[in-house]
Amino acid sequence: MATQANSVPHPILVEVDPFLPADQQKGLHNRWHPDIPAYASVKPGQVFKVQCVDWTGAQIGNNDFSDDIKNIDLTKIHNLSGPIAVEGAEPGDCLVVDILDVTPFEKMPWGYTGIFELENGGGLFAREFNSKAAKAIWDFKGIYATSRHIPGVRFAGVSHPGLIGTAPSAELLATWNERETGLIAQDPSAVPALAFAPETKGAYIGQDLDPAVENKIKSEGARTIPGREHGGNCDIKNLSRGSRCYFPVFIEGANLSVGDLHFSQGDGEMSFCGAIEMAGIITLSTSIIKGGVEKFALKQPIFLPSPVDPMYSAKLIFEGISVDYHGDGKQYNMDATVAYKQAALNTIAYLMKIGYTREQAYLLLSAAPVESHVGAIVDSPNACVTLALPLGIFEHDILPKEEGLKKLDFGQCAIRSDGVV
Amino acid sequence: MATQANSVPHPILVEVDPFLPADQQKGLHNRWHPDIPAYASVKPGQVFKVQCVDWTGAQIGNNDFSDDIKNIDLTKIHNLSGPIAVEGAEPGDCLVVDILDVTPFEKMPWGYTGIFELENGGGLFAREFNSKAAKAIWDFKGIYATSRHIPGVRFAGVSHPGLIGTAPSAELLATWNERETGLIAQDPSAVPALAFAPETKGAYIGQDLDPAVENKIKSEGARTIPGREHGGNCDIKNLSRGSRCYFPVFIEGANLSVGDLHFSQGDGEMSFCGAIEMAGIITLSTSIIKGGVEKFALKQPIFLPSPVDPMYSAKLIFEGISVDYHGDGKQYNMDATVAYKQAALNTIAYLMKIGYTREQAYLLLSAAPVESHVGAIVDSPNACVTLALPLGIFEHDILPKEEGLKKLDFGQCAIRSDGVV
Amino acid sequence: MATQANSVPHPILVEVDPFLPADQQKGLHNRWHPDIPAYASVKPGQVFKVQCVDWTGAQIGNNDFSDDIKNIDLTKIHNLSGPIAVEGAEPGDCLVVDILDVTPFEKMPWGYTGIFELENGGGLFAREFNSKAAKAIWDFKGIYATSRHIPGVRFAGVSHPGLIGTAPSAELLATWNERETGLIAQDPSAVPALAFAPETKGAYIGQDLDPAVENKIKSEGARTIPGREHGGNCDIKNLSRGSRCYFPVFIEGANLSVGDLHFSQGDGEMSFCGAIEMAGIITLSTSIIKGGVEKFALKQPIFLPSPVDPMYSAKLIFEGISVDYHGDGKQYNMDATVAYKQAALNTIAYLMKIGYTREQAYLLLSAAPVESHVGAIVDSPNACVTLALPLGIFEHDILPKEEGLKKLDFGQCAIRSDGVV
Amino acid sequence: MATQANSVPHPILVEVDPFLPADQQKGLHNRWHPDIPAYASVKPGQVFKVQCVDWTGAQIGNNDFSDDIKNIDLTKIHNLSGPIAVEGAEPGDCLVVDILDVTPFEKMPWGYTGIFELENGGGLFAREFNSKAAKAIWDFKGIYATSRHIPGVRFAGVSHPGLIGTAPSAELLATWNERETGLIAQDPSAVPALAFAPETKGAYIGQDLDPAVENKIKSEGARTIPGREHGGNCDIKNLSRGSRCYFPVFIEGANLSVGDLHFSQGDGEMSFCGAIEMAGIITLSTSIIKGGVEKFALKQPIFLPSPVDPMYSAKLIFEGISVDYHGDGKQYNMDATVAYKQAALNTIAYLMKIGYTREQAYLLLSAAPVESHVGAIVDSPNACVTLALPLGIFEHDILPKEEGLKKLDFGQCAIRSDGVV
Repeated sequence: MATQANSVPHPILVEVDPFLPADQQKGLHNRWHPDIPAYASVKPGQVFKVQCVDWTGAQIGNNDFSDDIKNIDLTKIHNLSGPIAVEGAEPGDCLVVDILDVTPFEKMPWGYTGIFELENGGGLFAREFNSKAAKAIWDFKGIYATSRHIPGVRFAGVSHPGLIGTAPSAELLATWNERETGLIAQDPSAVPALAFAPETKGAYIGQDLDPAVENKIKSEGARTIPGREHGGNCDIKNLSRGSRCYFPVFIEGANLSVGDLHFSQGDGEMSFCGAIEMAGIITLSTSIIKGGVEKFALKQPIFLPSPVDPMYSAKLIFEGISVDYHGDGKQYNMDATVAYKQAALNTIAYLMKIGYTREQAYLLLSAAPVESHVGAIVDSPNACVTLALPLGIFEHDILPKEEGLKKLDFGQCAIRSDGVV
Repeated sequence: MATQANSVPHPILVEVDPFLPADQQKGLHNRWHPDIPAYASVKPGQVFKVQCVDWTGAQIGNNDFSDDIKNIDLTKIHNLSGPIAVEGAEPGDCLVVDILDVTPFEKMPWGYTGIFELENGGGLFAREFNSKAAKAIWDFKGIYATSRHIPGVRFAGVSHPGLIGTAPSAELLATWNERETGLIAQDPSAVPALAFAPETKGAYIGQDLDPAVENKIKSEGARTIPGREHGGNCDIKNLSRGSRCYFPVFIEGANLSVGDLHFSQGDGEMSFCGAIEMAGIITLSTSIIKGGVEKFALKQPIFLPSPVDPMYSAKLIFEGISVDYHGDGKQYNMDATVAYKQAALNTIAYLMKIGYTREQAYLLLSAAPVESHVGAIVDSPNACVTLALPLGIFEHDILPKEEGLKKLDFGQCAIRSDGVV
Repeated sequence: MATQANSVPHPILVEVDPFLPADQQKGLHNRWHPDIPAYASVKPGQVFKVQCVDWTGAQIGNNDFSDDIKNIDLTKIHNLSGPIAVEGAEPGDCLVVDILDVTPFEKMPWGYTGIFELENGGGLFAREFNSKAAKAIWDFKGIYATSRHIPGVRFAGVSHPGLIGTAPSAELLATWNERETGLIAQDPSAVPALAFAPETKGAYIGQDLDPAVENKIKSEGARTIPGREHGGNCDIKNLSRGSRCYFPVFIEGANLSVGDLHFSQGDGEMSFCGAIEMAGIITLSTSIIKGGVEKFALKQPIFLPSPVDPMYSAKLIFEGISVDYHGDGKQYNMDATVAYKQAALNTIAYLMKIGYTREQAYLLLSAAPVESHVGAIVDSPNACVTLALPLGIFEHDILPKEEGLKKLDFGQCAIRSDGVV
Repeated sequence: MATQANSVPHPILVEVDPFLPADQQKGLHNRWHPDIPAYASVKPGQVFKVQCVDWTGAQIGNNDFSDDIKNIDLTKIHNLSGPIAVEGAEPGDCLVVDILDVTPFEKMPWGYTGIFELENGGGLFAREFNSKAAKAIWDFKGIYATSRHIPGVRFAGVSHPGLIGTAPSAELLATWNERETGLIAQDPSAVPALAFAPETKGAYIGQDLDPAVENKIKSEGARTIPGREHGGNCDIKNLSRGSRCYFPVFIEGANLSVGDLHFSQGDGEMSFCGAIEMAGIITLSTSIIKGGVEKFALKQPIFLPSPVDPMYSAKLIFEGISVDYHGDGKQYNMDATVAYKQAALNTIAYLMKIGYTREQAYLLLSAAPVESHVGAIVDSPNACVTLALPLGIFEHDILPKEEGLKKLDFGQCAIRSDGVV
């Protein structure tokens, strides 16, 4: 009989219930601030697990209407697990983090992708589409996802944390707040907002703190929407299970936090809630390289991708240039964002030819392992960006054919109970 | 003994001498206009070859100074081979083009990558670096390139035409000219220029035409720098030998032109003359899908990539966000172009740690098969773009190490004879 | 708050304790016979889980001696979970099985690879090496495995069931027993044995049966060592999580059984207990294609591999031919087995140059994702087989260098407590 | 204008006419012997080209009958280009050879795959199929091949030399001749022959030599059919353009010879003349590692594969075991050759279901980039070997479907003019 020596399972440093609201649970926080104390600590080399709620903290249900998306409270999002202090890490060091695995909870084998209302969250095409809430529920079947709301596709997940980063120093935090409030000041009433200033409403720390400390954190803490120098919400699909990431360290212990797990995501995450959002468990280990920021010129994280990301070698690729010819025909100068959008709109138009609704196509491109490359960014005035659709995710042949494309009926994704799309 | 039946070699529809100035040769043109007559025509299904000069038309030499780059005449560039009419193609059709092979001339087994002066051509970092002319000569050794100006690397080419497209209709041409001159009007004295208006100086048609027609073409013809709806200078590295591309057709015969061959290029082609520029031969075949523009919602070309692009699965990936923290720390709003630039600057900083000069690093990232993905483009205010450096192109291990990076001496690329960098 | 509608976890059809002997548990069996009743049944389309013991049924421990390998009872191995009946499956149908995931138990994050004694189990080089028991324990860290017994390597698992198949019909079972006992008869005293005849000793059914039925099964039931027409112990590493397999159906319900899970394995599984053997959980779903055996000429299973097998594109490849030049120099005629062995011995010799012991090298090649291709099998008298070692699994550079290979000290794997190797 | 400095094309060390019989040309030889003088020599580091005739020396024509295959003279085959001496190479060194490119002649854009008569050449299934001569002509269209004799497929070539190796020493040659004549002696009248003894008939040296030397070479020289310790006819498809190979050196100068170029080949090259055989040009460079045989335990060549081999990630995989159930049902013991044959026969049966004739299927599997892995080779008595068919080479969907496989009419390949198949 097998002895059990040396067979200790990996410790779970943060435990959560994915069906409970995030702000009723310990070990979660939704602001970045150096004064948030470490919730747990590890030695370099230790393999450990961290459980995470989904990015909305259980606001979205496995059902067939999108009213929960419509009414979501966005001040309460991105509850991160942690911070986890790593013994010995000091400012200027490089924290090496191995993302060893990312899995859903066994009791919650599903996730979702959402389109947000123009006025509540937006998304890349919020304005162009005058977006109304919509969503797709995805069922996890081992390494695959399928959706009753987007029939005809099945794909392997490139599972990753949408959000992972070290804690900022007070100086770095001040820099963030200054530059972002500066941007907001250029057009404070923009919809969607240009950026998000610190906001005490909805702020959550997840630990019992001295009220003065708690107030300081809540009033100064950086919001979690953008990625920044420490990592954060970079939403890079290839920072996936099996990857190794090198983070700059800004405070003692590094204070790593993680959350917003994605079962899958397309490059760009275009619909904003565009990944397959899930609650789940991430397995990590760390090591420290002393003085790594200087050694590697580490202005932002760098990483080694996983050897096991899905391989769909056959693709159909769409080009986009920095002319808004789906709108007013305006010519932009070398704008890769506009070029990405045009490539995406070209792809959506194609998917509609084979029978998907615009909402289904928008959700699918957000969630599936599509790849977007910057083609050329020096040929004035047009940047050129491509979007590659993997053919292997479709149950049927979608290639251009002499006889045109076969249009099927895929129904519709989950929409609002009032039927507005 | 083998009979020679059925062994006819593929016909060469345009023949050029890569060592002669482009404007002394037939079958070349450097403007887009519907009235440029077809130089040759083919039936659908025919395999054929087209020879192309390098994008400068033999202005750059295989030597160790960059004075030729400094003094280049940019009005005479992008001499394309063609147009090739395809029998039966009509406006609204889709022209399917198989890019069957792209090779250098046997007698010219070398190419180059250049950094242009700020005032004469520029490039992505022309202003940041106050760019002075520099270049690297690359030697072609079968499928590989190496450079005496950038030692320590060797990589397989992902060879492709930088420039390929169908002729515009008069209406489309008018649209281009209108929107681009509109952009220029916003800042006519910008350096580098925002866009390039029609210009008779340097215009070349490569055929004997009625002077009135020639004048019309030269005064109206669209410049070749940007990619547009017809393809054009899209500089997409994966539109490589083995790919199949679907172009919209705008005039009778489609009138396909091609040039600006690249032995290799990185995503973004950052230094502007950033690919490994070469003269060479492209092998093509075509077919027509009637009404394909409508059938496939073909606003711009779409394509199937080649099954033989180089596979370097191990990569080191750098992140960039839309904050100009290498400059004034300015916060941009969702600007993927800025994010791309930051990722590139982070990579250059890393390469300088291992011993490359800034110029060498800039040239290398332009020319080698680096990949740039749009990570996320919805997390206000920061777009996140990544740049992936394939590890397999380096002769030595460049991974982050506990002991830091080993700095070697790689000399310097070709610079101006006056020594200014 | 998330409603829990539709969030039912996947049912577990067989539950086991990986630390208990297999023959004390229900739902396990170690012979193939049509009369073993289904232990559970499923409808087509249902996603379900099956727990499996390791292939020895908990005979091997996580410790630093190989005495358990030396003394293993091989009559009690390969306890499979099942059979699972699929509703509606009939002889002549094709049973489509999606292998959706394969994971270790959370409480048992380790596995092992073993070298068996020549007289008790053997292995590919049992005779050449006069094998003594040895083993390596592997620790699972998310998608990766590392071993304290083989330092210097880390690789992503290509996790799969070593053994999966449908139940044979009575006719098929008779065919197996006839042809295999015929082979044994050619040399009944061969060591290792040429094949394994039915054997009541150690046979286990895992259900309460009528004694007459039980005796019939035990005396007739086919042993589990070889793969056969129904699948069985094919030990194909790429029949991994994410793959879809098409099995012929021989009896009502198909009666699928599965076990012998592997965290990883090299092509060939050369040391016999050569995979990283583990207990764990497999997630499956099925569908039925009526008459599929005839439709697809299904003599044996066919399958679609997973899109997520590890991608290590850089490899060092060793050739082997059908000359036994490590032994007596004997020339074989087109023998791919001999060629495989020579390629393996060449690889082992190389690994010993960099510091691994012969036992470590033998274990590593068995367990890591090495690939073996049949190069050529028609060039009399030499078959040529290759073995490809992925470079990315090593922590250091193992490529051939001008200065030779750097020999490090990697210690030794777990050996017998009496020190004999 | 471009200066031509440093633009010298790579020298061509052996020039041939692919339409002339091999034995009328210089620089070709078809035996292995240490006394064949170097035909040319190179310095390490030099890039050079070698032209090669096809493996039959122009015996096969581009036509629609297979009579030339039927009547081929097999004593005159495998005329290799060379030998090429590398300055400084000595016995015991390792000769590093970069296979930089492999291309067809521009004037001969076609090749062929053949099935040989049982009595004249044979092939893997010569006896099972009672093979009659058949062939397919392949047209080269850039990186792709298509055949009028096997419609419905198109694939990218993984171009390589079927035959490349260093010259043997006198001792090694004696070893070869001894062990192979020993094998022949076991059954001298076997059809196909077990091996091929030295034979003066048809022997060709391609240089003007002293008659005594010439006679010695012709009477002792090893035949070229099998791969051996020096490389030789290993027919490994992945030793392709872009790969780097490490050969043992047995005589002064190494004396490298190369020929039998393949545009493409499947693992195993099953029909014997199973690759797409072509005449063409190979581009090489070399370097020397002193004492490399000892440094790397170099019993046979080892190599690094190319980064540009075709990537067809979606595959349908067939299993085979070492039971001859297509014949007499005989059980073999761990015989990977039999298992390979069964996997191949299963694949052929499947291809016949979709409409290919047995001959077309046999030729296609020989020529297309199919992959054959040794699955398991330790599960007595059945070795398990797989054959993977890339889906992307087919113009139509060949996956197993609920409704069965759609059988199309693909005609037939080239057969004998007397119509016998």
